[in-house]
Amino acid sequence: MIVVLTGGTGGAKFVDGLRRLIPPEELTIIVNTGDDHEWWGLYVSPDIDSIVYVLADILSSERGWGIRGDTFHCLQAMKELGEEAWFSVGDKDLATHLLRTQLLSKGQTLSDATSYIAKKLGVRSRILPMSDMRVETRIDTPAGDLSFEEYFVKRWYQDPVNAVRFAGASEAEPAPGVTQAIASAQAVLIAPSNPVTSIGPILAVPGIREALQTTQAKVAAVSPIIGNAAVSGPAANLMTAQGLKVSIAGVAQAYESFLDALIVDDSDSVAAQSLTNDRLHVHCTNIMMRDTEDKTRIARTALALTCPGILSRAAAETR
Amino acid sequence: MIVVLTGGTGGAKFVDGLRRLIPPEELTIIVNTGDDHEWWGLYVSPDIDSIVYVLADILSSERGWGIRGDTFHCLQAMKELGEEAWFSVGDKDLATHLLRTQLLSKGQTLSDATSYIAKKLGVRSRILPMSDMRVETRIDTPAGDLSFEEYFVKRWYQDPVNAVRFAGASEAEPAPGVTQAIASAQAVLIAPSNPVTSIGPILAVPGIREALQTTQAKVAAVSPIIGNAAVSGPAANLMTAQGLKVSIAGVAQAYESFLDALIVDDSDSVAAQSLTNDRLHVHCTNIMMRDTEDKTRIARTALALTCPGILSRAAAETR
Repeated sequence: MIVVLTGGTGGAKFVDGLRRLIPPEELTIIVNTGDDHEWWGLYVSPDIDSIVYVLADILSSERGWGIRGDTFHCLQAMKELGEEAWFSVGDKDLATHLLRTQLLSKGQTLSDATSYIAKKLGVRSRILPMSDMRVETRIDTPAGDLSFEEYFVKRWYQDPVNAVRFAGASEAEPAPGVTQAIASAQAVLIAPSNPVTSIGPILAVPGIREALQTTQAKVAAVSPIIGNAAVSGPAANLMTAQGLKVSIAGVAQAYESFLDALIVDDSDSVAAQSLTNDRLHVHCTNIMMRDTEDKTRIARTALALTCPGILSRAAAETR
Repeated sequence: MIVVLTGGTGGAKFVDGLRRLIPPEELTIIVNTGDDHEWWGLYVSPDIDSIVYVLADILSSERGWGIRGDTFHCLQAMKELGEEAWFSVGDKDLATHLLRTQLLSKGQTLSDATSYIAKKLGVRSRILPMSDMRVETRIDTPAGDLSFEEYFVKRWYQDPVNAVRFAGASEAEPAPGVTQAIASAQAVLIAPSNPVTSIGPILAVPGIREALQTTQAKVAAVSPIIGNAAVSGPAANLMTAQGLKVSIAGVAQAYESFLDALIVDDSDSVAAQSLTNDRLHVHCTNIMMRDTEDKTRIARTALALTCPGILSRAAAETR
């Protein structure tokens, strides 16, 4: 079993590459839920949805979120009713939120609801929320204490960031299966997600970092940083606020207690050399994911570094 | 003030005629809520929506319900998720249900939520639910005790009807303003709606029938029955189950304690003569509402019979 920790659009792209290489049943995805929020009275879980959609092969690759070819007529009507409309929910996408909200209101856990919806959409991999308890990423800014979606979507991540916290994390528990999946994994891959607000919330759930430290599996991450900038999104500001350098060294630092291998861009080869030591292998390649070929290539690199056997087995099976 | 009691598609057509004749501020619509139901976890109020939409000039006249030009992409996605999809909710229409559900969950009454949504859509008439308390039309059939929407939409009103009841009616109160509007009306018009399941629930709310009996205003109804059949929908079976004749006599009987005038089809002129007495005036005209001209003509007839002054005043104002 390959276990992936992920969040955000970079994570969904990486999983899109992985799903093309190994059987879906051999993939367990542990997903950030720190961005979950209530929207129009519905429980929305953006990172879980992106992973469900990419594995169901319905993710919009142009937008990187939501469902391919979706329309936004309800959103438009909400705007006309004078309601907030800064978080774009598509009409088909709404069905997911409506169904999840109903399942939760009937007492199902987020894990149960996720697994139910994923199954209905034909997903055969295992998708686990990091926790069934509410852990909320809060961004402290001069404009106030914002939810991640307020900071990221509503305000276009333009606010200076004083600090990031994960409200509820200290009392949270990993969702059923999370630590077990990490413990028994053949490899653990950290997607090229924002280390602070995509992977950070997962690591903040007590027990998950410990599982990563003690697993026998190799743990490899793909850097979301090239040079001194994020490939996309607000990672740079957020890393700075958390005292991390905005560089591959900062990424290594975020994961240092458990990371075996870090995949970085060719352009970071000098920094890569100085970062390499007997505990960390730093591998250089082209890490930009522009198309399916890129995504597959990077996923293959991650598997080759951590669990080469699965690639030859998968190749043999498809022969 | 002209007060209208209404429900269903016939009611919305009649209101469409009225709104073309008199200033919106002079119209108060008291609406059946016996068909309200929970759908995908949302509170749906089909008759209120039809009235809001027709007064906002966005009702689909082809379908007679929902929003003109709406799409059904969320419905399709729900179907693909394996959820019930027999109740057609459009994507724009969903915005209304989402907003209403949120307002109710924040503690607003149905009256408040209705008035808020109507105002946002530019409606200047007053729309009152018959009650802010839950009164549910239940149809007892050999297939079981069904909600009105289950009987009507899901099962295409094919089941024999043993009985109709309005669960919760005896404990319900009229919504604020309902009995006052009837008491102070210049005229009360009963739309050509199903007397059993559209007007019946309104009359079942304690206090409303009494207000109709004591108001100084003339009360006129447009018959939903021509000959021995309903113009549309399941009125015939439902009237039979309630011990009413399926004829204009049955309509007169349903409203006999308060009705002053009944507008029936020209083809019922013989029955009309025998129904006329010193308490009830029966007026014959063509009551089929096929287009805007029909709707306006029938609305004008109803106003002429009950409150002719408002027509000459409205005509003078538009001059």
